[in-house]
Amino acid sequence: MAQYSKGLEGVIAAETKLSFIDGEKGILEYIGIPIGELASHSTFEETVYLLWNGRLPKKDELAAFNDQIRSRYALSKDIAKLVLEMPKTGEPMHVIRTLVSALGVFDSKPNAIDLPSVRDKALTVLAQTPTMLAYYQHHRKGTPIVPPDTSLSLAENFLYMLNGKKPTPTMAKALDVCLVLHTDHGLNNSTFSARSVISTESDLYSALTAAIGSLRGPLHGGANEGVMKMLSQIPTVDAAEAFIQDKLAKKDKIPGFGHRVYKSYDPRAKYLKVLAKQLAEDTGNKDLYEKSARIEGVMEREKAAKGIYPNVDFYSATTYHCIGLPLDLFTPMFVVGRVGGWSAHIIEQLADNRLFRPSVDYTGPHDVRYTPISER
Amino acid sequence: MAQYSKGLEGVIAAETKLSFIDGEKGILEYIGIPIGELASHSTFEETVYLLWNGRLPKKDELAAFNDQIRSRYALSKDIAKLVLEMPKTGEPMHVIRTLVSALGVFDSKPNAIDLPSVRDKALTVLAQTPTMLAYYQHHRKGTPIVPPDTSLSLAENFLYMLNGKKPTPTMAKALDVCLVLHTDHGLNNSTFSARSVISTESDLYSALTAAIGSLRGPLHGGANEGVMKMLSQIPTVDAAEAFIQDKLAKKDKIPGFGHRVYKSYDPRAKYLKVLAKQLAEDTGNKDLYEKSARIEGVMEREKAAKGIYPNVDFYSATTYHCIGLPLDLFTPMFVVGRVGGWSAHIIEQLADNRLFRPSVDYTGPHDVRYTPISER
Repeated sequence: MAQYSKGLEGVIAAETKLSFIDGEKGILEYIGIPIGELASHSTFEETVYLLWNGRLPKKDELAAFNDQIRSRYALSKDIAKLVLEMPKTGEPMHVIRTLVSALGVFDSKPNAIDLPSVRDKALTVLAQTPTMLAYYQHHRKGTPIVPPDTSLSLAENFLYMLNGKKPTPTMAKALDVCLVLHTDHGLNNSTFSARSVISTESDLYSALTAAIGSLRGPLHGGANEGVMKMLSQIPTVDAAEAFIQDKLAKKDKIPGFGHRVYKSYDPRAKYLKVLAKQLAEDTGNKDLYEKSARIEGVMEREKAAKGIYPNVDFYSATTYHCIGLPLDLFTPMFVVGRVGGWSAHIIEQLADNRLFRPSVDYTGPHDVRYTPISER
Repeated sequence: MAQYSKGLEGVIAAETKLSFIDGEKGILEYIGIPIGELASHSTFEETVYLLWNGRLPKKDELAAFNDQIRSRYALSKDIAKLVLEMPKTGEPMHVIRTLVSALGVFDSKPNAIDLPSVRDKALTVLAQTPTMLAYYQHHRKGTPIVPPDTSLSLAENFLYMLNGKKPTPTMAKALDVCLVLHTDHGLNNSTFSARSVISTESDLYSALTAAIGSLRGPLHGGANEGVMKMLSQIPTVDAAEAFIQDKLAKKDKIPGFGHRVYKSYDPRAKYLKVLAKQLAEDTGNKDLYEKSARIEGVMEREKAAKGIYPNVDFYSATTYHCIGLPLDLFTPMFVVGRVGGWSAHIIEQLADNRLFRPSVDYTGPHDVRYTPISER
């Protein structure tokens, strides 16, 4: 029996051919392709195809895949109705977890786990998560719902549905790159939880619902909201240094810095930084970027923060803010991208499955007598 | 780095003081108390108290705990409305996963993970899962909804809401014992998935939703439906032997037999067997029990089935059928019991948390070039 490693740190829990991370060197690859190549040249849809098929699509394959996704943007009447019945006070992560779960209730064969069925259902979730989020946003704000436009890419269409007008090319590109960078990332907790759930031969909806619930946590996807909250607390660019020094002195954690896996610069942060800078300039949010850059400068310089680098959340915050996302849609946006990676892992787990059923170290009492209530 | 053990078999993934299993000797204890003692003398509510508090309640503590549960039987208007908006064709496991998730949408502080908050929310889920299931059952059948009766125990009240009349003492006792036997069981997949999800410091609803999705799987809680389907396929008691011999000859799995952990008689099956026998006699389903007993006899006798014993699902099927549960509410009934154990594990995980973030064995390619689409 192996020694107990809390949080399963260092324990290999699965084999994968999907993404590779070298935390020491700061490398992330999807199917062997460095993340920077994909961020620079690919699209979110193509990246999902890559992960689901183990190779890049040919031109006609990509066109067909794009068409399949676009043809599913529109919600069924039932789901659209359900979105409008969610309370306006609901937290979007709880709402999207519930709505993805509900897709399983309305599916006539929700439990099919053969490969074509799983891919088919995953395409629907991929295409409709942005629509459900945009509909919910209008519902709670009382603004008119904007139906999807199937002539647009997933990123363009999301911004179109959210803001009621077509995004600028920079905004659409920024969101698309964000989605590419967020698509997959080894056995992070949500992906691991999804693989654990599907290992009972459950179903796609059950596994994705688990993953969304995991991603909500502040120690996982929920962290990007913490970065934005911190940036909002810092009144000016010049106040950033003192703010961080104070936090370091108190040994507070700095949101958006540090990662269980990366012991060098998170390669995703590198690309997000470039995006965030340009977007901030374009959208009149230069201060936000400058604050972030100052914070990074302090962290780089200070011994107390040695070896702690910005992670994917750090520059995501500025990016999401600049494309007009409200704070509580930051983590749901992460869901939109990660549905691609979760689904790839679900497919991979099902192809060579074994039920996750670990052991436990029992540290409690034994052979205790059941005392009748009158004797307690 | 530890060697890769598929499905994490033999890997210790957590410490627990909740339940202890000795698979070789067929022992199951909750907080050290043998399961047989609890099945014989305790109640479901008391068993949940035991797991949540690490000790049996005193008389007034149990009374207060019972009151707290009963006072929460009734659904809020919003949730009752949502149940009635679920499609009548929905599969109950997808429905209950969605409704438990929705409780989080309607909660004004869904993310609170301090101990009093988690216990408070868990009590609500515990008390309302039966109500949601009974309401949904009437909704899809078009029969009148029966509101809960707070003078009844959880098991009594569930049967009352489901059947529109108070259950016989034998039926109520049978369901109560079933719930006790199903409350906790070490790091089974759903419990492990729940602990994984809560380790991101997510929330009770996210963790329970993950667990329900896991339990749905045929390799986990979904297996009890397989037993009932098999029993229905066997026309007479005398046909049971040939049916099983045929399955054994074909090397088919026999639903309700075998368990990853137990290499001897599942102690839960022992108690369920006694219950099932009496209930079957009382409710005119003697044949169902006799078929089961014959199957067990063949399995005991045959070399091909050596070391394969009935598990908790085997006699659950007869029990659930005899208390009037439709087939597709068997696994949701398992949910009702296991909410107690899952919540106990969530509380335990939060008390000494470390994010589950295992490693992965990457077996794919490296350093692949991104070829432009025109070159593919």
